[in-house]
Amino acid sequence: MTKEEFKLTPWEVSGDIDYNKIIKEFGVSVINSKILSKLKNAPPVIKRGLYFTHRDFDLWLEDALSGKKVSIVSGRGPSERMHIGHLVPYLAAKYLQEEFNCPLYIPISDDEKFYVKKDLSFENVEKYAEDNILDLIALGFKQSKTFIHRDFQYTKIYKYAAQIAKKITFSTAKAVFGFNNDNNIGWVFYPAMQSAHIYLPQFEGGAHRTIVPIAIDQDPYMRILRDVADKFNFIKPGAIHAKFFPGLSGDPKMSSSLNNTIWLTDTPEDVERKIKKYAFSGGKETLEEHRKKGGNPDIDVSFLHLKYLFEPDDKKLSNIYNDYKSGKMLTSELKEITIEKINKFLKEHQRKRELARKQTDKFIYKE
Amino acid sequence: MTKEEFKLTPWEVSGDIDYNKIIKEFGVSVINSKILSKLKNAPPVIKRGLYFTHRDFDLWLEDALSGKKVSIVSGRGPSERMHIGHLVPYLAAKYLQEEFNCPLYIPISDDEKFYVKKDLSFENVEKYAEDNILDLIALGFKQSKTFIHRDFQYTKIYKYAAQIAKKITFSTAKAVFGFNNDNNIGWVFYPAMQSAHIYLPQFEGGAHRTIVPIAIDQDPYMRILRDVADKFNFIKPGAIHAKFFPGLSGDPKMSSSLNNTIWLTDTPEDVERKIKKYAFSGGKETLEEHRKKGGNPDIDVSFLHLKYLFEPDDKKLSNIYNDYKSGKMLTSELKEITIEKINKFLKEHQRKRELARKQTDKFIYKE
Repeated sequence: MTKEEFKLTPWEVSGDIDYNKIIKEFGVSVINSKILSKLKNAPPVIKRGLYFTHRDFDLWLEDALSGKKVSIVSGRGPSERMHIGHLVPYLAAKYLQEEFNCPLYIPISDDEKFYVKKDLSFENVEKYAEDNILDLIALGFKQSKTFIHRDFQYTKIYKYAAQIAKKITFSTAKAVFGFNNDNNIGWVFYPAMQSAHIYLPQFEGGAHRTIVPIAIDQDPYMRILRDVADKFNFIKPGAIHAKFFPGLSGDPKMSSSLNNTIWLTDTPEDVERKIKKYAFSGGKETLEEHRKKGGNPDIDVSFLHLKYLFEPDDKKLSNIYNDYKSGKMLTSELKEITIEKINKFLKEHQRKRELARKQTDKFIYKE
Repeated sequence: MTKEEFKLTPWEVSGDIDYNKIIKEFGVSVINSKILSKLKNAPPVIKRGLYFTHRDFDLWLEDALSGKKVSIVSGRGPSERMHIGHLVPYLAAKYLQEEFNCPLYIPISDDEKFYVKKDLSFENVEKYAEDNILDLIALGFKQSKTFIHRDFQYTKIYKYAAQIAKKITFSTAKAVFGFNNDNNIGWVFYPAMQSAHIYLPQFEGGAHRTIVPIAIDQDPYMRILRDVADKFNFIKPGAIHAKFFPGLSGDPKMSSSLNNTIWLTDTPEDVERKIKKYAFSGGKETLEEHRKKGGNPDIDVSFLHLKYLFEPDDKKLSNIYNDYKSGKMLTSELKEITIEKINKFLKEHQRKRELARKQTDKFIYKE
């Protein structure tokens, strides 16, 4: 069996991702049962293994459980509207914030997206930043402990980034990110801004453990920023790494560029149409064959939506899994369940999103 | 006659500077008598040729004289206390502001100095920024039209710099500034910040002509930033370029690293000691020879201080020149005049510097 060689950078994912290879190459640790046993009431993204590896999450948990100061950072690059794949880190962050009652910082990297996306105008990235902040607030974070800030608005971040930038040479950045001479100088500088986001809790609140829920492709940023911790007497920030959330078509990473996305602002009709038309199915080609041999829920995108996002109840999920696998449940029936679950979530989300318009100011970090 | 090959970058000046070669290589225009005839009551730094070349100063003057909106930008990199060589651009800026009643922006590039000077700490660059601002305010700029801002404090500048950074590739920056892989990524980004300083009047006030008094070694920044003007519908900023103000020892550029500097905070005794001990003299070796053959004022550092900074009266300067050249005036007598003039200036400057402590807030740009 041959696999297409995969490519993985913070800006590009292609080919068949070999997660075991990543674990070895990146030198990250697996989120094992010992860690999971300490996470009561964890949401699907955590308890069902979408978050699969970490750096120093065990140490963060130890501090959190013993009442020491800890924090969470979970950034958002506003290059477009948000889709359901973008929920992944925030569902993890929300759980950790609630469970351990700790501050959550949400840096909006309007600058990164502006630097990296050739055709994204300054005006549009700002528009998306404002739009995305509504979705983030709608997720229901604890207002008194949640701090949203935008690089193009929040004064202090450049000052902190500069202090980190002085410690990172172009050749280090080049080695870690694969920069070349055609990259613009904002893009080259951005790793320092990203580092500043993640050190912000320590810059402002002194040395303590921070955890960052990220997709695994963002880990190079963690490596470069962890290397400078000692120079500031900070503690190396930790991370939990998610596998990619699949696109409707079954592509490894949900992405708007592949037209296989459910937006957080989609109507019930949009969702129904997209799931029915595009959601990659693990079912058999004919009804007869499906009833006889059963479907494959492990590759069925509708099922994966339930598994990782929309069906927290283990018993219910298990029933769906078994019924689909045995052939008792048809693809059309599975899709109906997924459509209903997504629409139920989106209805509530969109209601809260409208309310968020009046709450923005309370969440924006200004100190 | 062989000359040591000179080297000139925004961070390094060495060898014997060949200004004619620079004019040709940089493609700048000479400040000719036609331009000078339009500058009534110009200060010594302008009327006596320390400012020797320009880019679009003629066009700036045309707009200024016809009542169109124009502005001045004159930045300061706070890597140390200020010395009298640092006065040069501000004497030009002050004159232009008064003569043409236009706004003057003074960006304090604390970030540049922090990136470039390996051993300069963040705390020290901030201390020098505060200190230098006192000297700048003491120079007596029109408060209602003077805007001082610091990169580590002024929110908006990063937002503007980012928009410029997207238009500058690493290879362009490398070609213009000679960057290599060992430069830190803050330093690599800095040309975008510098450009943002100079476009700030246009970002905030719409397209108009801006003039920047700089030493000739800073011209690469002008070249890189003028290239992006069209992309923002801005007018290419102009510049007037000064030759280097000589150090006491006669080195081409006054620099604190050469221990040949008169600080703006020096005492009268400091000044007397330094001029007597270090100021390179154009006089002859013996009194007898000097009386007979005369001195050379053109290479005499004490005389050059009078010429470019401290003796605005042409008649008086001419008398000193002739008397020294004929041998009528001795080096010791010339030095006494210079010491007196510098100390008179510094006494007043230091008085105003103390008053400036209470005025800082009025000059800091916050919009």
